[in-house]
Amino acid sequence: MPYQAPVRDLDFLLNDMLGVERYANTLPGFADVSADLVRQVLEEGARFSDEVIAPLNKVGDQHGCKLDAGKVTTPPGWKEAYHQMVEAGWPALAADPDYGGQGMPSVLALAVGHMTAAASPAFSMYPGLTHGCYEALHANGSEEQKAKYLPKLASGEWGGTMNLTEPQCGTDLGLIRTKAVPNGDGSYSITGQKIWISSGEHDFTDNIIHLVLARIEGAPEGIKGISLFVVPKFIVNDDGSLGERNGVECAGLEHKMGIHGNATCVMAYENAKGWLVGTENKGMAAMFVMMNEARLGTGLQGLSIAAAAYQAAAEFAKERLQGRSLTGPKNPEGPADPIIVHPDVRRMLLEAKAIVEGGQAFILWTALQADMQRSPEEAQATKAKDYMALLTPVVKAYLTDRGFHAASLAMQVHGGSGYTEHYPASQYLRDARITMIYEGANGIQALDLVGRKLAANGGRAIMTWFSEIDAYVAERQGDGPLKPFIDGLASSKAKLQEATMWLMQNGMQNPDNAGAASTDYLHIFGLTALAYMWAQMAETAQARIDAGETDPYFAGKIATGRYFVERMLPDADAHLAKLRTGADVLMQMPAEAF
Amino acid sequence: MPYQAPVRDLDFLLNDMLGVERYANTLPGFADVSADLVRQVLEEGARFSDEVIAPLNKVGDQHGCKLDAGKVTTPPGWKEAYHQMVEAGWPALAADPDYGGQGMPSVLALAVGHMTAAASPAFSMYPGLTHGCYEALHANGSEEQKAKYLPKLASGEWGGTMNLTEPQCGTDLGLIRTKAVPNGDGSYSITGQKIWISSGEHDFTDNIIHLVLARIEGAPEGIKGISLFVVPKFIVNDDGSLGERNGVECAGLEHKMGIHGNATCVMAYENAKGWLVGTENKGMAAMFVMMNEARLGTGLQGLSIAAAAYQAAAEFAKERLQGRSLTGPKNPEGPADPIIVHPDVRRMLLEAKAIVEGGQAFILWTALQADMQRSPEEAQATKAKDYMALLTPVVKAYLTDRGFHAASLAMQVHGGSGYTEHYPASQYLRDARITMIYEGANGIQALDLVGRKLAANGGRAIMTWFSEIDAYVAERQGDGPLKPFIDGLASSKAKLQEATMWLMQNGMQNPDNAGAASTDYLHIFGLTALAYMWAQMAETAQARIDAGETDPYFAGKIATGRYFVERMLPDADAHLAKLRTGADVLMQMPAEAF
Repeated sequence: MPYQAPVRDLDFLLNDMLGVERYANTLPGFADVSADLVRQVLEEGARFSDEVIAPLNKVGDQHGCKLDAGKVTTPPGWKEAYHQMVEAGWPALAADPDYGGQGMPSVLALAVGHMTAAASPAFSMYPGLTHGCYEALHANGSEEQKAKYLPKLASGEWGGTMNLTEPQCGTDLGLIRTKAVPNGDGSYSITGQKIWISSGEHDFTDNIIHLVLARIEGAPEGIKGISLFVVPKFIVNDDGSLGERNGVECAGLEHKMGIHGNATCVMAYENAKGWLVGTENKGMAAMFVMMNEARLGTGLQGLSIAAAAYQAAAEFAKERLQGRSLTGPKNPEGPADPIIVHPDVRRMLLEAKAIVEGGQAFILWTALQADMQRSPEEAQATKAKDYMALLTPVVKAYLTDRGFHAASLAMQVHGGSGYTEHYPASQYLRDARITMIYEGANGIQALDLVGRKLAANGGRAIMTWFSEIDAYVAERQGDGPLKPFIDGLASSKAKLQEATMWLMQNGMQNPDNAGAASTDYLHIFGLTALAYMWAQMAETAQARIDAGETDPYFAGKIATGRYFVERMLPDADAHLAKLRTGADVLMQMPAEAF
Repeated sequence: MPYQAPVRDLDFLLNDMLGVERYANTLPGFADVSADLVRQVLEEGARFSDEVIAPLNKVGDQHGCKLDAGKVTTPPGWKEAYHQMVEAGWPALAADPDYGGQGMPSVLALAVGHMTAAASPAFSMYPGLTHGCYEALHANGSEEQKAKYLPKLASGEWGGTMNLTEPQCGTDLGLIRTKAVPNGDGSYSITGQKIWISSGEHDFTDNIIHLVLARIEGAPEGIKGISLFVVPKFIVNDDGSLGERNGVECAGLEHKMGIHGNATCVMAYENAKGWLVGTENKGMAAMFVMMNEARLGTGLQGLSIAAAAYQAAAEFAKERLQGRSLTGPKNPEGPADPIIVHPDVRRMLLEAKAIVEGGQAFILWTALQADMQRSPEEAQATKAKDYMALLTPVVKAYLTDRGFHAASLAMQVHGGSGYTEHYPASQYLRDARITMIYEGANGIQALDLVGRKLAANGGRAIMTWFSEIDAYVAERQGDGPLKPFIDGLASSKAKLQEATMWLMQNGMQNPDNAGAASTDYLHIFGLTALAYMWAQMAETAQARIDAGETDPYFAGKIATGRYFVERMLPDADAHLAKLRTGADVLMQMPAEAF
């Protein structure tokens, strides 16, 4: 069975746990948001995702994209599905009404994005990159640029991309060589080669708007000489019609381990006409809007693939008959028991489920912070901005790392079947692996967290985070059924605080200590974030049970949370012990000895 | 650069750490074994592996195997390389001289097998399966069968396979339906379908000898009615010439995530002529010889792929220039520093290196036990047999699980490049993933360990293992440079013992507790085994340093071991904490809630 979107789980999170309708009078975009509207959007999104997008996923993996004389052909049926998506208005869900968008909250758009990313991650990257391009232009473009590009980017009638990487520079964008020469008419002539450009060329749309990092002639060396340009595939005339073909072409497609349905392009710019976005030499700051959006999107993608992989594994485990339960037959009339009777199979499924549902809560909670950034109440807006900065690397790296782990567990549940391309487990595993790498490899996210985000504004964000958790825990002391969740959260938060102290004491004097600790620190952070989410989910479910709810869904939620607390949280101790060993054990080895 | 066989590491392990020449007078097969001979075999093996096998790996991944009208064509160049291998005598290295083998120790053959498995895992499965078939017939075949089949299996002139799985049964072989009907002339008529038969059909050899599990008409239900048959592709006449084509054919090839170069076949048996191997209805016991061999071989394969993946990642990290060291430029004349200056890149490399080198030591130490099983000294032979039974599931599951993890780290070091098929990281990751699944999925290995191996002979094997480690630790108390290794080993062993006690107290009363604890238990076991190996490697290297050796190789060995102790051993605590939570958290969830 192809992936079925998890309406129930998202409804639980948006309406029961986050209670988004309570912001109707306080946050921009929430005016029309009610529990019913949320449910309606989820149901329509699920229908579209299940019926139109999910069937594309395997065909995309098998066919991939083809390049012929600069033209990219996407897999069979993809173009038609994309047009259906645009016609249905999905890309514009959370876009600015000034540019034709529906102005709905980010948190709702993200819930829909979760469905489509799970149904087909490679397909969802086309609208995903376009939305990132929209956001970057929305934040940094001139009024003229916004008027020219945003409406068609918002609707998805045009595609959008981000062009950063070059062969000699991935992480280190200071090494960019693509050059921009002023034409004297306000435009620039862009020349250079960009690689790994997702959705760089395709047959979905009439035009593709490239955002390109390049160096203006005579600009300073390194990162301080990088500017951002908008380079349309077809020049857009002042009346909005398409003009001449620009000097940008897809010169090659990468042969990748997964996400075959998305065209990963080598883009050749040869005197392509481009226009400066924002200020000269401040391109990195402008591009960061898109990069931060893409990082959240990548965290979402890793999580979403895990969700689909888990669903397939759970289905397989309930159907596959093999062996008998250790405590006697559970399916005595059948030739064997379904493998879900085995504790170790349940361990794998529950681990994946705890990651997926904890991750769904975490990313929606974070998306709500994105909405709160626009709060008219300054304190709320500031706190939300702090959280977004602090949590973006955690969402990106932790959810993709654990998402890949969950996809691998899902394959393991399938046994040998999972390794054949007949079942979807292999595609999920192959697709998931890229999410740990692109949009800033997970090690870079960890370094961003410990090197930049912790110290920003004198540590204000992390202190706020600690205070919020402390207050949550303090209000819930007691011996009720939630005790394991509250204790687990308090204990995990204490370890995170200890790790933070260690970093303050050791990372300043020797930056290598910060680097050596970064990944373990990020994992303790991720575990604490999920502990906070699981406490809230358990509390929400328990409240329903206490109110007489008998649907086993709520007991299942608490049982999954118990798995998280008892079987995943212990990793925080191991990460803390590793973190404390510092840099010496890593740095003492001469490079030649590797 | 293609994979280069690790002669230096294997020389260190075989000659320095294990000191294999000391067994020259006590173990069969070791009479001619000297340090020089070991080095010579390693060097010749490495030359063959580097020059002939390693270049096959990528072409195998890209071309895969093709099936046309029952005939399988292997990738370009593979057949020729196989013939070179047979001519050079490599398959016969450790085979019985009575059947044309060279009678060398298993430990030496395994060292050579490590090189070839790392150079091309898919290629190495052809001789690997043949050797397993040879071993099973050697242990269980009649004198006539041995005379007929063993010489050509030993030399590799014929191929061999094992046929267990059917569509309805993978792990649960009691469900086998393939039937065997006596022909009245001592032969049987075999009919049924087998799937996932590695090397099931190919163009390397004139004949392929299939070992097939089937049910003799009227045999008891389940596992007690399974017999083992030898079914040659071409009937072998009494004079050794090939007779008629038998009723067995490759009916399909699996489309897999990796190991494309190995033909994974659907085998159709239609009244194929077969001969009973060993006793009627005792086929499982006979096949276990091959399965145990295959399990060690799979552990070796997982480890070997990790070794190759690590090597490629280390090379990449030393060459790729990107960013600057956190403590100031290390390559000030260049545009950036090599990424190996970054602590987190070193963390990934050291983790993979600690797994690979610890795993090499562990599997060679275990292979030496395999040789000691044939010791004329009864106590030594009994202990070795106990260890082989106890450690086989640990070697299989721990090395493949950590091997895949290492291959994933190796991809991560490559960044985006690693996800493209231009670099070898993707193939290593895809190839490595199957090792966690086949020859008994890792969860089955964990269950075998806690359910069968621990309790066998009143727990004799595990008690001997604990005593050996206790004695090793007791003899090495003190404050010297080895203290962290000895302390780490003692502490890990104490956790393993605690976990064993927990299992004894909780697993008996509720078998689900044993199942729930099994994977965490196996990981604590694996960590303890590697801690024991790292202590021995560190001791060996330290002795060389103390003797005035200045080659940085030895200091590098100790530095890698320190990584293991400080950054990998902490996981034992987490596994112990998880293990102690028992089955309830896994079993309370109703199947419908997954």
